[in-house]
Amino acid sequence: MVHFRSPSKAHRLFLLLLLPASVAFSPAAPIHSFVSAQPTSTSTSLCSASNTAPAIPMWAQHEISITAPSRGCHLITSEVNKAIQKDIASMKIGMANLFIQHTSASLTINENADPDVRRDMEVALNKICPGQWTKDGTFHHTMEGEDDMPGHVKSSLMGVSLNIPIKNGRLALGTWQGIYLNEHRDQGGWGGGHTRRIIITLQGQS
Amino acid sequence: MVHFRSPSKAHRLFLLLLLPASVAFSPAAPIHSFVSAQPTSTSTSLCSASNTAPAIPMWAQHEISITAPSRGCHLITSEVNKAIQKDIASMKIGMANLFIQHTSASLTINENADPDVRRDMEVALNKICPGQWTKDGTFHHTMEGEDDMPGHVKSSLMGVSLNIPIKNGRLALGTWQGIYLNEHRDQGGWGGGHTRRIIITLQGQS
Amino acid sequence: MVHFRSPSKAHRLFLLLLLPASVAFSPAAPIHSFVSAQPTSTSTSLCSASNTAPAIPMWAQHEISITAPSRGCHLITSEVNKAIQKDIASMKIGMANLFIQHTSASLTINENADPDVRRDMEVALNKICPGQWTKDGTFHHTMEGEDDMPGHVKSSLMGVSLNIPIKNGRLALGTWQGIYLNEHRDQGGWGGGHTRRIIITLQGQS
Repeated sequence: MVHFRSPSKAHRLFLLLLLPASVAFSPAAPIHSFVSAQPTSTSTSLCSASNTAPAIPMWAQHEISITAPSRGCHLITSEVNKAIQKDIASMKIGMANLFIQHTSASLTINENADPDVRRDMEVALNKICPGQWTKDGTFHHTMEGEDDMPGHVKSSLMGVSLNIPIKNGRLALGTWQGIYLNEHRDQGGWGGGHTRRIIITLQGQS
Repeated sequence: MVHFRSPSKAHRLFLLLLLPASVAFSPAAPIHSFVSAQPTSTSTSLCSASNTAPAIPMWAQHEISITAPSRGCHLITSEVNKAIQKDIASMKIGMANLFIQHTSASLTINENADPDVRRDMEVALNKICPGQWTKDGTFHHTMEGEDDMPGHVKSSLMGVSLNIPIKNGRLALGTWQGIYLNEHRDQGGWGGGHTRRIIITLQGQS
Repeated sequence: MVHFRSPSKAHRLFLLLLLPASVAFSPAAPIHSFVSAQPTSTSTSLCSASNTAPAIPMWAQHEISITAPSRGCHLITSEVNKAIQKDIASMKIGMANLFIQHTSASLTINENADPDVRRDMEVALNKICPGQWTKDGTFHHTMEGEDDMPGHVKSSLMGVSLNIPIKNGRLALGTWQGIYLNEHRDQGGWGGGHTRRIIITLQGQS
């Protein structure tokens, strides 16, 4: 029941079956309500339109593989959007999860405009967990190179799993938010061909 | 089918339709089972009551806007609970996601009692990614002030997306856990009025 | 409707009721599609089989308690798998959330083979947020010992909530990925018996 694009007769019958119940469930309550909870300032409260459409549960799962051009932080928002565009379009409310199946790469969300932010993010990670720790005896796991154990640490600091809400058929990213794939290996990873696999799981309702 | 508070006749009919199937699905298996998996110590295993009620899938999505009083870590548990209280009440099992649509603020869960913990968290973040890196040539993205690029780094270290399980109509936070909004901008952010938007997405079953 | 192992007559009737609709929903579209989105290199695109089976929404929630043998990073993948094995088996697509209800412990995913990685991860965390900050006046929250406030910081850096996709009845972890429980307290925590409670919430469809 995942893909739901060309409603057939059977589909319409199923919707009819659900319709009276679902309308009854939510006579007046809004699904999307804007609440302003401001601990120290004034607030405004806006209610958006209510959703009385029947809820068809939908799941979809994709895998994308990305080989980054170099160690560092790279925007992959458009690649993610391309992979999910057909499935997400009919989801009014939902949740997307991105999960990278690796231990020296990571996913995060950050500024999508100035390339210097991605450059500075990589610089900051190298200062927070320097490669030097592989050479000065700090780390014991050093067989796979200077960038390996720091890559594991950065992967856990940034995270390998990312949840992004779905709203009205789109990822509900803020204006300045983009999805980063952070590759923490250098020669071993990028140039040498570490292709990173990301599982994208979508769920939602129409 | 999100809001489900005043069951109508149609609703009861729908439940009747589901009931025989759902009871058949889970004749004796518990939904909430307490399993103790202790790699190095003894364990006890307790089974709670089984749930044979029909599962009505529910989704809800809210937006709250919060303007923090100052740069730093701030408890917003009560604001979040207020925004979701009507929707979460009927969810026996579920998942809440909080997503902040910004790149120099973040969300985390931490100690909810001693204000010093929030103060110390902010101090630690400033030591882990100091504003000095904006002035000493470490960072290139410096046009928006000393607190901007460090704010981006802290946002990714702490994260912008938070998943909290729902259990018996409430967020299943531990006794000492509270939800933090971390504002990483100072004058530009707080005093100047950076209102932060958080999308709260709930899903669950009754 | 969570447990779904011994289909009864009523169950089969329910499936029959759903079947025409769900087949109609996804006439040709695949659920699992492998898309290769590579910003800078060549890509291959493979489509896996489509799923036209009826989607039965399933939720399950478990609690496991783990007492770690010492401060540091510990693999708990097998404990988690043991707790969820019965529920996850029938989920073709889904999402697992692990949530640790504590503020000086955390969960992460990292390398599952070399114990040195876990040892080095703990060493890195102690360098990123040293216990020294409890003694030199950096931190104010010092009453509960040198390891307490650093434990809170590490907990937020690593995170207390972890989402792992479910694919074909299993956690979709990468080959080298394991689930870590990070205990950030020493005597107070480990030796002294800090048992950490983890709520595991599963949802998916068969």
